[in-house]
Amino acid sequence: MTGKLWGVGTGPGDPDLVTLKAARAVREADVVAFFAKEGNHGHARRTAAGLIRPGTPELPLLYPVTTEIPTHHPDYKASIAGFYARSAETVARHLDAGKSVAVLSEGDPLFYGSYMHLHVRLAPRYAAEVIPGVTAMSGCWSQVGLPLVQGDDVLTVLPGTMEEGQLARRLADTEAAVIMKIGRNLPKIRRALAAAGRLGSAIYVERGTMEGTLSTPLEDKPDDKAPYFSIVLVPGWENRP
Amino acid sequence: MTGKLWGVGTGPGDPDLVTLKAARAVREADVVAFFAKEGNHGHARRTAAGLIRPGTPELPLLYPVTTEIPTHHPDYKASIAGFYARSAETVARHLDAGKSVAVLSEGDPLFYGSYMHLHVRLAPRYAAEVIPGVTAMSGCWSQVGLPLVQGDDVLTVLPGTMEEGQLARRLADTEAAVIMKIGRNLPKIRRALAAAGRLGSAIYVERGTMEGTLSTPLEDKPDDKAPYFSIVLVPGWENRP
Ligand SMILES: C[S@@+](CC[C@H](N)C(=O)[O-])C[C@H]1O[C@@H](n2cnc3c(N)ncnc32)[C@H](O)[C@@H]1O
Ligand SMILES: C[S@@+](CC[C@H](N)C(=O)[O-])C[C@H]1O[C@@H](n2cnc3c(N)ncnc32)[C@H](O)[C@@H]1O
Repeated sequence: MTGKLWGVGTGPGDPDLVTLKAARAVREADVVAFFAKEGNHGHARRTAAGLIRPGTPELPLLYPVTTEIPTHHPDYKASIAGFYARSAETVARHLDAGKSVAVLSEGDPLFYGSYMHLHVRLAPRYAAEVIPGVTAMSGCWSQVGLPLVQGDDVLTVLPGTMEEGQLARRLADTEAAVIMKIGRNLPKIRRALAAAGRLGSAIYVERGTMEGTLSTPLEDKPDDKAPYFSIVLVPGWENRP
Repeated sequence: MTGKLWGVGTGPGDPDLVTLKAARAVREADVVAFFAKEGNHGHARRTAAGLIRPGTPELPLLYPVTTEIPTHHPDYKASIAGFYARSAETVARHLDAGKSVAVLSEGDPLFYGSYMHLHVRLAPRYAAEVIPGVTAMSGCWSQVGLPLVQGDDVLTVLPGTMEEGQLARRLADTEAAVIMKIGRNLPKIRRALAAAGRLGSAIYVERGTMEGTLSTPLEDKPDDKAPYFSIVLVPGWENRP
């Protein structure tokens, strides 16, 4: 009997925002795996730390250092595809040995998460189940108490990496928007929001639901520094009853 | 001392997909409130049933019967606004009496949820905290193991009530899409997906994570019957490494 693969959403950061089902899967797993950068435990691992049984074997899947290769270069894609294939085989060895493996995944596993690269490679060969999680965006708009969409609103989720004109066009053509992957894209994101007439309602949230979180109207943020864990929210809901 | 208002996300339907924090808030609340239709316990109430302490006072907020008034008519808006205002005052009386009130909310409270109408009315006057939940869409794509968005994909969330041409235009202009509020809109949604060239990849999920759930490629669904709890998912992720 081969073991079962669990893709476990750990939510936006607050350990209390893990679901009952995810907590149980982590507690009961034979092996706990997670993606991380060298020398860094990974965010999902940190969120779920209190749930892992002491002594459980852990399997960090360490991203290759690819910072020198631009992400749109074919070498990057080949390098990262090789990494996902090797990671899947590492996990498969434990499944073959009859062990259940819980892969911890920030937020929701199938929403911009690395877990999906394991899932598509392993689900055809092994029993696999995905436990959804609270997304980062839900954690962020809840923390600031910002109703995001209502009634017939359209919501557009945009990567901050997008080209400025495209970003502005899409921001002007939606009731609500969420911009992920802020980082060094913040000056461009500000310009696109301004061009779309949406800068005034944009809210910036950093490290939502985690320790040291902060939030502010984007217009009041004095600098353009944004860590990896930051997001911009543009609420819809103009037609509220 | 007035009581605290909690907006509690109960997730997509499976009682195990409630968060640890939501479970605690429901267990500890002095009063449990929820929106429902007359003669019907409401979906969030059903999901959280096992968490409510026996004997806890419950406060069903019953939607007025407005089926004769079209939703875009000013009378509808006035009627529903009056209902939200009265509901907020009903909750406020318990807060004034020093009781904490947990308002159960399907999925995530601030994502197309009725709770937001209480929040905007009461948060300026009382301590209020929103506990995010797993959205219906996350529950649905996890159940079918469908990676929805990756890398630089754009996700568009669309109400099925939208006009056909608009729907088709937006479906053609996004990597991934989620269509909510299916019901009687299904024939129109099929036509819009076909016009956008996306019908072949659309997945239909009914009662995701609940008892009696079913899912199928939309093209294989033989009829146009869709209950309130149904959704259509169009995955992005063409550029997978
Ligand atoms: C690769 S995506 C992962 C998304 C995750 N799977 C989810 O369901 O939300 C990483 C992006 O999510 C956002 N993010 C994740 N956690 C966050 C947090 N706690 N606060 C703000 N943004 C966060 C940031 O925009 C970051 O660039
Ligand atoms: C008023 S919205 C509420 C959304 C909810 N607040 C959330 O976070 O997902 C209701 C719509 O959500 C979708 N929905 C809710 N629960 C669902 C489920 N279990 N399966 C499929 N669709 C669901 C349906 O499209 C329905 O029309």
